[in-house]
Amino acid sequence: MDDLVTRLRVALPADAVLTDPDITGPYAHDMASFCAAGTLAVVVLPRTVEQVQHVMRTATELRVPVVPQGARTGLSGAANASDDCVVLSLVKMDRILEINPVDRTAVVEPGVVNATLSRAVAEHGLYYPPDPSSWEQCTIGGNIGTASGGLCCVKYGVTAEYVLGLEVVLADGRLLNTGRRTAKGVAGYDLTRLFVGSEGTLGIVVRAVLGLRPAPPGQLAMAAEFPSTAAACDAVCAIMERGRAPSLLELMDRTSVRAVNAMTRMGLPETTEALLLAAFDTADPAADLAAVGELCTAAGASQVVPAEDAAESELLLQARRQALPAMEKIRSATMIDDVCVPRSQLGAMIDGTAAIADKYDLTIGVCAHAGDGNTHPVVCFDAADPDEARRARESFDEIMGLGLELGGTITGEHGVGVLKKEWLARELGPVGLELQRGIKAVFDPEGILNPGKLF
Amino acid sequence: MDDLVTRLRVALPADAVLTDPDITGPYAHDMASFCAAGTLAVVVLPRTVEQVQHVMRTATELRVPVVPQGARTGLSGAANASDDCVVLSLVKMDRILEINPVDRTAVVEPGVVNATLSRAVAEHGLYYPPDPSSWEQCTIGGNIGTASGGLCCVKYGVTAEYVLGLEVVLADGRLLNTGRRTAKGVAGYDLTRLFVGSEGTLGIVVRAVLGLRPAPPGQLAMAAEFPSTAAACDAVCAIMERGRAPSLLELMDRTSVRAVNAMTRMGLPETTEALLLAAFDTADPAADLAAVGELCTAAGASQVVPAEDAAESELLLQARRQALPAMEKIRSATMIDDVCVPRSQLGAMIDGTAAIADKYDLTIGVCAHAGDGNTHPVVCFDAADPDEARRARESFDEIMGLGLELGGTITGEHGVGVLKKEWLARELGPVGLELQRGIKAVFDPEGILNPGKLF
Repeated sequence: MDDLVTRLRVALPADAVLTDPDITGPYAHDMASFCAAGTLAVVVLPRTVEQVQHVMRTATELRVPVVPQGARTGLSGAANASDDCVVLSLVKMDRILEINPVDRTAVVEPGVVNATLSRAVAEHGLYYPPDPSSWEQCTIGGNIGTASGGLCCVKYGVTAEYVLGLEVVLADGRLLNTGRRTAKGVAGYDLTRLFVGSEGTLGIVVRAVLGLRPAPPGQLAMAAEFPSTAAACDAVCAIMERGRAPSLLELMDRTSVRAVNAMTRMGLPETTEALLLAAFDTADPAADLAAVGELCTAAGASQVVPAEDAAESELLLQARRQALPAMEKIRSATMIDDVCVPRSQLGAMIDGTAAIADKYDLTIGVCAHAGDGNTHPVVCFDAADPDEARRARESFDEIMGLGLELGGTITGEHGVGVLKKEWLARELGPVGLELQRGIKAVFDPEGILNPGKLF
Repeated sequence: MDDLVTRLRVALPADAVLTDPDITGPYAHDMASFCAAGTLAVVVLPRTVEQVQHVMRTATELRVPVVPQGARTGLSGAANASDDCVVLSLVKMDRILEINPVDRTAVVEPGVVNATLSRAVAEHGLYYPPDPSSWEQCTIGGNIGTASGGLCCVKYGVTAEYVLGLEVVLADGRLLNTGRRTAKGVAGYDLTRLFVGSEGTLGIVVRAVLGLRPAPPGQLAMAAEFPSTAAACDAVCAIMERGRAPSLLELMDRTSVRAVNAMTRMGLPETTEALLLAAFDTADPAADLAAVGELCTAAGASQVVPAEDAAESELLLQARRQALPAMEKIRSATMIDDVCVPRSQLGAMIDGTAAIADKYDLTIGVCAHAGDGNTHPVVCFDAADPDEARRARESFDEIMGLGLELGGTITGEHGVGVLKKEWLARELGPVGLELQRGIKAVFDPEGILNPGKLF
C-alpha cells in the first residue's frame, strides 16, 4: 500500500491523495442500506484527465481495484469501497466546458452537480431533464454511471437519452472517445450507451457531451384522491391510453401520504388510499389537467384538486419528493426497492406488494413514478430486531420476484450495485449474463474496475 | 455446399431454401452503389425462431458465413452477400404479435414492413415515428440492424430510441433476450442498444419490443426560398436556437430542386439557391409556422410560403422525398453520402461540399435533414467514364473527411456496411476499433455473422 500511495503521488498533488481514515471514512459507501463495503486503501481526487490516466495506469500495474465515485448518493452500493481499493472520486472535475444553444449540447466534466448544470443551461433557455431526487447533490458522472431517472422521465426519458458522447479513461489508462456531438450518428456499435448504467465497471467517464432540450413552459400540477390504489392505477392507464403527455405522473399510497404529513405537517388528505399527482408543461396545462381530472373522476377519484399556480404546483411536488425521507422515519431502517413493470401491470404490482407486506407483517409504503410503471416500495423495519430484518430482506426479494413475474425489471433507475447482484443474474438469465461478463472482460481484462458490482 | 443445403433442409420446408441462381440473384446485394457483393451459396427464408436457430447452428457447425437481410433497401452494402454464404432473409417472419395502447408498446417479428406497422399502430391512436424514405418496403429488422433515421427525427429521434427489448438468435443458435417491456430499466449493460445499428454482425434479431408514442395531430408545412444555402442554414440555426420544435426541417439545394422539377414537373421555384421545408404537428401549427417564417425572413428568405392544408403540406414533403431518386437521373450513377455535423456547422458543411464539387468538376446535389445537421450530398457521375468515377469516389471521401473535421460523423443514418469501412476505422480511432472488435468476438467468436461488414 505504501508503494501504491507513493506511486499515486508522483503525478497527483498532495491534497488529491487522502489516506487519513478519519477523512476517508465517508468515502467507503454510498446511500444504500445493507450493502457491504470494504476498507479502502486511498482516496484520490484528480482534477485532470491526465491525473485520472495516471491513477488507472498505476492501478493496472499494481493490480489494485479502483472504485469510481461521484456524490455517493446512489441507492444500490455501486460506489461502495472494495478492500484495499483506490476510491477514485471525480467530484473535483466539475467544470461545465461548453453550452451550445444552436446544437443544444453541453460538454461537462463528470463532477458537475446535476442541479448546477440544470441551472446553467436554463440561463440559455435550455433544459437538461434528468432529475433524480438527489439532484442538488448528485453528479452527472454518477448519473451516467447509474443511468439515473427522476420525476420527469414519463415525458422526457432517462439519463441514457441525453448522453451523446463520452471521453473515457480505460482500465489501462488509455483514452477512448465514444459517440458524437451531432444529433444523429450510427458509426459502429453504440459504446456510449454501453457505458451508461455500467456502474463504473467498464471505464472512467472524464467528459460527456450531453443533449439538451428547449426549456418547456412552467408546469402546472394537480392532485387526485382515490379510494383505492387500484382505482388510481386505472386512472394512470386511462391517462396514458388516451395519449396524454403529462410531465409528471406520480402515485403515493396511504402509508407514504401519512408519513409525509407526520414529517412535514403538509396536511395532505389522510383518508385517501392513494394520491395521484399529475402535471403538464404544455401550452395550455390547465386544459390538459381538466381533461386528466375527468379521467381520474371516471376512474373513481373522490376529489380532484388542480393547483392554482406554480407555487401550489411546487408544493405538491415537494410532497412527493419528501415521501422517501418521510418513510425512513417510520421504523429505524428502510430498504427502498425500484421495480418497474409495464404500466398496465402497475395495479397488480402495488396490490401484490400490499399482500407481501401482510404476509411478512411489515409496513411497506409505496410511491411510484406511476406513468412509467416504476414503483418504489419502501420496506420499513427495525434493524435491531433480527427477525424483522430477515422478514424485510425476504419481502424485498419477493417484491422483485413479483416484478419479474409481471413482465418487469428489478431496477427501473437505481441500478444493481451490490444490492441486486443475485437478482440481476436471475433477470438476465445465463446467456445474457455470460455475454455481459464477456463485454466486461473486453474493457477490463484484469478485473480492477469496481469489482464485485453488477455481477 | 451440398452438405450445407442438405443440412438446412432438415428443419426448413422446401420453399424456405432457395438455391436456383435465377431466383437467388437479387439477394446478393442491397441498394448501395459500388459495394462489392460475393456469390451466395443459398438463401433461407425461415418463418419461426426455431428455424432461425437451426440455420445458425448449421452455419456454426460448418463454419459458413451468414448474411442477415430484410428488404435490402440499405444504402451501405451491409446486406450484401459474402462468397459461399447463407443469406438469411427474415422477410417471412412478418407478424405483428401485439399492440398495447396502455403500455405504448408493440411486439413484432423482424420482417414486418415499417409502413405496415405504422398503419397498424395508427388504428390504435399510436405512432411509430422512424420513417426512412424506404418505409413502404423496409422492414423493422432492417431498421434495427441499420439504426435507421428518416424525416421526423428532428423531433422524434431515430430507431434506436424506440427499441426497448429484443429476442436474438446468437451465432451458435442460442437465444438471448435483451432489454425490457417497461418504460424504464437499468438492469446490466444495455445490450439492446448494442444490437441497434450492428448490421447483423452480432446476432439475428427475431423479435422486438418497440416503444410507441401517442399519434400527434396532422402536420402543417411551409417552404422558404433563400438566395444562398448559407442563409438557409442561418435560418435553421435560428429556428433551433429559439427552442422551436419542428416535426420536419429539411433543406434542398438548387441542384436537388431542379432535379425534382425535371423528374416530376412539380414546379418548385428554380431560381432559389436553397429551399427550406419546415413542418409542425403541434396544437397550433399555423402559429408555429408563422414564427418560423419570420425567422426565415430575418435570415434572408426571399419568399415564405405556408401550406394551406394537409394536402399542400404532403405535396411539399413529396418534393423532398423525390430528391434522391430525382438526382439519380442527373448522370448515369450516384453515390449518396450521409455525413452528419453539429447543426451549427451545417452551413460550413454545405459550402465545403460545393467547393469539393468545384474541385472535382462534378455535380454534387445536397438535400439534408437540416434540423439534425444530417446532409445527403449526392455525387452524380458517369460510371462508364473511369476518370469521372475516380473523381466521384475521391470527392465522396473528401466529403466524409470534411464532416469529421467539422466535428461530425461519417454516417448519420445509412450505416457503414462495406461502403465506409475504412472511414469507420478513421472515425473510431485505434482504441475504439479494438474495443468494437473485442465486442464482436464476444458475440461471434467464429466470425460467421456478416463477415467483412463494419470493420
